[in-house]
Amino acid sequence: MTQQAKLNGEDLYLDDLQVGQRFATGSHVMSESEIKAFAAQFDPQPFHLDDAAAKPSIFRGLAASGWHTAAVTMRLLVESGPRIAGGLIGVHGHITWLQPTRPGDVLTVESEVLEVTPSSAKPDRGHVTMRSSTRNQRDEVVQVMSFKLLATRRHAPGIPDGSKTIDGALRSPPAAVALVDDATTHRSQE
Amino acid sequence: MTQQAKLNGEDLYLDDLQVGQRFATGSHVMSESEIKAFAAQFDPQPFHLDDAAAKPSIFRGLAASGWHTAAVTMRLLVESGPRIAGGLIGVHGHITWLQPTRPGDVLTVESEVLEVTPSSAKPDRGHVTMRSSTRNQRDEVVQVMSFKLLATRRHAPGIPDGSKTIDGALRSPPAAVALVDDATTHRSQE
Repeated sequence: MTQQAKLNGEDLYLDDLQVGQRFATGSHVMSESEIKAFAAQFDPQPFHLDDAAAKPSIFRGLAASGWHTAAVTMRLLVESGPRIAGGLIGVHGHITWLQPTRPGDVLTVESEVLEVTPSSAKPDRGHVTMRSSTRNQRDEVVQVMSFKLLATRRHAPGIPDGSKTIDGALRSPPAAVALVDDATTHRSQE
Repeated sequence: MTQQAKLNGEDLYLDDLQVGQRFATGSHVMSESEIKAFAAQFDPQPFHLDDAAAKPSIFRGLAASGWHTAAVTMRLLVESGPRIAGGLIGVHGHITWLQPTRPGDVLTVESEVLEVTPSSAKPDRGHVTMRSSTRNQRDEVVQVMSFKLLATRRHAPGIPDGSKTIDGALRSPPAAVALVDDATTHRSQE
């Protein structure tokens, strides 16, 4: 919540988003203690927990869990990335880890809008697909995520009541929360 | 490390893995405090932090960050999923969130081997693609991940020295850690 309050700029609705738009974030330093704490809680494998144990592994030294890099990327996006109205809510997407994240690495994220798709079924919303590249202090890309996010429309078309903005729509969501349209489910894309 | 020691069964090499093999995990209860703690650290959006703030959101109540569900899924896989020799090391993959994870949800993961691919360039290793479905206590699938993982071979073919097993290979990795073969990089799959 504190982080939300720090955000600059205006909320972005689906109508404001265009293919090719780019957004940068601030940075985050990955400390060794953070790497080990995340691993102990979520990915307790030797190469994420202990430098000596990591030396003979394929990582050749302590490396952050890929899920830690993903989580820190999310933090950077929420704090200082594109401020999408209604929040950054991912539906599905692809993630690639290209390099290990090491203790002391300084991560930043750059995002680009790849696709903007109004929903044919729900006039108050749509999806935006963003590719977010996470780089370290040597400008090496350590992770690339391409995710489809929910996005709401500034004014729902075909709804004459001006008060029925997206905020209004979000205040009265459908009875069942379905994050994925049937037509867009990608369960085993590979 | 402690968790590793708890694992049952033998290490699985690429040679041991076959399309259609299935693996189940133990379970994890998502507490409200865990959900809020993860969100505060990695995904500080109102609907992951505060029940009252979450009510008017599309989630209609407190929901775990999708990255939290992913991280807990990883924990379950490391603790009690398929014990792949050398560790569970993801290269790239696809993730879909189908339902929110709620406080009190009991998560379990079932994985299925989709593909087993020896490397043409590196005779000591290959990849295995696994689909891991995370379910709640109502047997609803909340998340599906399909990821390509590194896998090592029990005995590297064409290497007469019997000591040059995969473990040996992992002890002398290439000078540069490249987690992704150029040919298999999927940076913007959507």
